[in-house]
Amino acid sequence: MTESAYPMLPVEAALGLVLAQVPPRSAQSALCSDALGLITAAPVVAREPLPPFRAAVKDGYAVVAADGPGVYPVVGAATAGRMAPFLVTPGTVAYITTGAPLPNGADAVVMVEQTATDADGRVHILRAVKPGEDVRPVGYDVQVGQEVLPAGAYLGPAEIGLLATVGMHEVAVWPRPRVGILSTGDELVEPDDTPGPGQIRDSNRAMLAAAVTALGGVPVDFGIAGDKAVDIQARMAAALAASDIVLTSGGVSMGELDLIKPLLEGAGQVHFGRLNMKPGKPCTFATVERESFGHGQRRLVFGLPGNPVSSLVTFYLMVAPAIRRYLGCAEPQLPRIQVQITDTLRLDPERPEYHRATARWQADLHGGRGGFVAHSTGNQASSRLVSMRSANVLLELPQAAGTLAAGTTVSALVIGALDVYALDG
Amino acid sequence: MTESAYPMLPVEAALGLVLAQVPPRSAQSALCSDALGLITAAPVVAREPLPPFRAAVKDGYAVVAADGPGVYPVVGAATAGRMAPFLVTPGTVAYITTGAPLPNGADAVVMVEQTATDADGRVHILRAVKPGEDVRPVGYDVQVGQEVLPAGAYLGPAEIGLLATVGMHEVAVWPRPRVGILSTGDELVEPDDTPGPGQIRDSNRAMLAAAVTALGGVPVDFGIAGDKAVDIQARMAAALAASDIVLTSGGVSMGELDLIKPLLEGAGQVHFGRLNMKPGKPCTFATVERESFGHGQRRLVFGLPGNPVSSLVTFYLMVAPAIRRYLGCAEPQLPRIQVQITDTLRLDPERPEYHRATARWQADLHGGRGGFVAHSTGNQASSRLVSMRSANVLLELPQAAGTLAAGTTVSALVIGALDVYALDG
Repeated sequence: MTESAYPMLPVEAALGLVLAQVPPRSAQSALCSDALGLITAAPVVAREPLPPFRAAVKDGYAVVAADGPGVYPVVGAATAGRMAPFLVTPGTVAYITTGAPLPNGADAVVMVEQTATDADGRVHILRAVKPGEDVRPVGYDVQVGQEVLPAGAYLGPAEIGLLATVGMHEVAVWPRPRVGILSTGDELVEPDDTPGPGQIRDSNRAMLAAAVTALGGVPVDFGIAGDKAVDIQARMAAALAASDIVLTSGGVSMGELDLIKPLLEGAGQVHFGRLNMKPGKPCTFATVERESFGHGQRRLVFGLPGNPVSSLVTFYLMVAPAIRRYLGCAEPQLPRIQVQITDTLRLDPERPEYHRATARWQADLHGGRGGFVAHSTGNQASSRLVSMRSANVLLELPQAAGTLAAGTTVSALVIGALDVYALDG
Repeated sequence: MTESAYPMLPVEAALGLVLAQVPPRSAQSALCSDALGLITAAPVVAREPLPPFRAAVKDGYAVVAADGPGVYPVVGAATAGRMAPFLVTPGTVAYITTGAPLPNGADAVVMVEQTATDADGRVHILRAVKPGEDVRPVGYDVQVGQEVLPAGAYLGPAEIGLLATVGMHEVAVWPRPRVGILSTGDELVEPDDTPGPGQIRDSNRAMLAAAVTALGGVPVDFGIAGDKAVDIQARMAAALAASDIVLTSGGVSMGELDLIKPLLEGAGQVHFGRLNMKPGKPCTFATVERESFGHGQRRLVFGLPGNPVSSLVTFYLMVAPAIRRYLGCAEPQLPRIQVQITDTLRLDPERPEYHRATARWQADLHGGRGGFVAHSTGNQASSRLVSMRSANVLLELPQAAGTLAAGTTVSALVIGALDVYALDG
C-alpha cells in the first residue's frame, strides 16, 4: 500500500508546534480610533487626575455643609467648563450644575430636588448634607500615575473611552497579522465566473478571508493557482514576501498532484503533514525564513485541505490560535465551553471528530442555572459547506466506537458569535 | 421640591417604545466581500447543483465496482478541472485525483492507500468497493433550487463561502445604520487637547463610536457642542440630516442647562425622559420626522447621560437593540445568560441596577457541566469608566434592600465578547 511519509500528529501536539513558531513581533503605535479589538502592548498610565477639580455630581446648590437646612441667598452660578469667580462663604449658597467645579468655600452639593426657590430668589435648603456629599474629589475616578490599562488589555469601547479620558491619541498595540490566501486546483474558477465542464467555483478564499477578518487579521488575496508547480511557486513567493501567514487550500492530499508539500519542503521546513482529526487529516504546516524578509522574520505557511469544511475546521484549530498569538492574546486557543447535545451522535472509531453544531443558551437548563444546548448541523460530509452554516461551535467528539446519547455533556470549541447565532439561528 | 415632568419608565416598557419606532427599511445589495456580519434580507437559492458532476472524494483509481479486487490496466488519468476524454470499461481502471470528475463507465473510487502499482504500470486493487463509494453524486452538497441561506441569516465566514459556492457576487442585506454622535458640555475638550481650568476631556464620543462599530453600525462624528442652544441645535440638525440614529451625551439632567429635552420637544416627539434604572436615569428618547428626510424617514434620537458609565450602560440597554433591529436581527435585545456571582453585592432599594462584571466560563462548575462565573469590576460610581474595563456583562440586580450573597445565580446581559474577556481578563 502507498502510505504518507508524514506521521499522523495529535491535534494538541500539532498546535504546540504551530504556536512555538510564531516569531517575536514589534509593538506598533495605533490611533485610538483604529484600535478597537486590538490588545495593548504596554501599560497605559494616567498623567493627570480625573476629575482634575472637585466636581458636582448633581445639579443643585453648592453649600457649606455645616450651615444645615435653612433659607440662603445665592451668590452666583457655578457652571461646567470654568472655575467660579466667587467664593461661597458660610450662610450663602451657589447654584451649580453637574460636572461643574465646586466653588471655593463650598464643601458639598444639595441636589435641586431637595431645594425650593423663594419669590425673592433665595433658596430653601430642605435637607442636611455631610461635607463631600454629591462632590467627586480630585482624582476620584482616575488618580495621577494610576495604570488605567495593563499591557495585554483587550481594547473594547470602554477601554477606548478610557484612552480618550487620559488624553491618549495613540496606543501601543500588537499589529494585525497579514494573512495571504491562495487556492490551488485546475478545477477552480472565480465565484463570479461560470464553471466549464469539470469545474467548480472557488469558495475557500472568500470564506477564509472572512474568517481572517472576523478574527482580527488582514486577509490578502493571491488568487487561484492551477495545478502547475510553477504557478503555485510564483504565487507562493509573492504571498510569502507580503504576509506574516500564508494559507493555501487544496493540493495536500495523497496523490500525484500533491504539489504543496514538496514545494514547502524545498522552501522551508515542514513541521507536520497529517493530523489525527476528522475532518482535516491532510493539513500541513511549514515555516519559511528568508534574509529578504528581514531579521527574524519567519513566515508561517498552512497547507489546508481543499474541501471547504476541512479547510475551515483546520483554520479554526490551527490558524486561528496563530492569528490570536500575533494579536497578543494571552490564551491563543479559541475558548472552550461545555454543551448538552440534543442529538445522538455517531462516533468515529479512527479519529477524534470536530462535529459542527449550533450552541444556544437555554435559561431553564440545569434547574434554572442555565446552560448551552447544541444542535448538530446534520450531515457532516467535508464537502458540504452547508454543515458549517450557523455553526458557532465544534463539538470535540472522542475517537471511539458507538454513539454519544442525546443529553450528554461534551466539550465544544467556540468558532462563532455565541450571541448572534444564539438568538437568530 | 422641583420634580422632573417625565415619569420614570421601567426599562422593559422603554425598550418597547424604542423598538416600535424603528422605521421600515429597504434592503440593499452588498458585495459578498463586504457582507461579513450582515443579515440576509432574502433567501439565497442555488441555480446549479454542487458538485455539477460526479466527483472523486479521494485520490485513487476510478473503477467499475463489479470488477472487484484484482490487477488491472490503467486507461488514463482523470484530473480535476476537465472531463476525462476516455471511458473506463469493465476490466480497466483510471487514475483519479480528489475533486476530479468520474470518467464515464466508472462507478466508484478505490483510494490510493488500498492499491499498489506493478513495475509494468498495472494496478492492484486490494479491496472490493460498492458502486458510488468515494464518489460524490451530482448535487450531493447543494441541489438545484435548494435554499442555501434563508432570509434573516447571519453572514459569517461559512455563509460567505456558501455565497461564493453558488456564484453570488452580491447579496441582499439590511444595511448598517448610520449613527451620528455628538457630545454637549462647556467643560469638554477633545481628547488630544489639554484641558483648561474646570475642563475635562470628552471620552464619550470615542467610546460610543467604538460601541456602534462593534455592534455593526457606522458611527459619524458631530463633535462637541457647548452648552449653548444654538450650537446644539445646529449640530443636531446636521446629525439628523445625515444619520438614522443620533446620540447625544450630556445635558439631560435636572438643571437649568438641560438643553436637550426642550430641543427635542420642539423638533419632534419625546417618548420618555427618565428610566427606572441605575445608572442611566436621565436617559431620553425622541423621534424626529421631517419631509426633507424623505418619505417615512424617521430619526431615532437618544439623549444619553453625560457620565461615561451611564452613557455606555444606557447605550447597551436602549441603543444597541435599535441598532440590531436596523441590522435585521430577529431578536434585537442583547443576549442574556445566567452567571454565578463571586462577590456579595449590595442591592439598591430604589432602582434596578446594572452592575458591571466580567463573566468567564468555568469548566468545573456545576459538577463538570460548566457555567459562567462573574466577578464584579468593583466601585460602581457612574463617573468611573474604569468600572466598565473588561466588563462583558451587566448583572441585572433587582431593586431591593440588603445584599445578594456570593454564589447566587443572576441574570446578565452580554455586552462584550465572552471569549476575549473570558480568556484574557
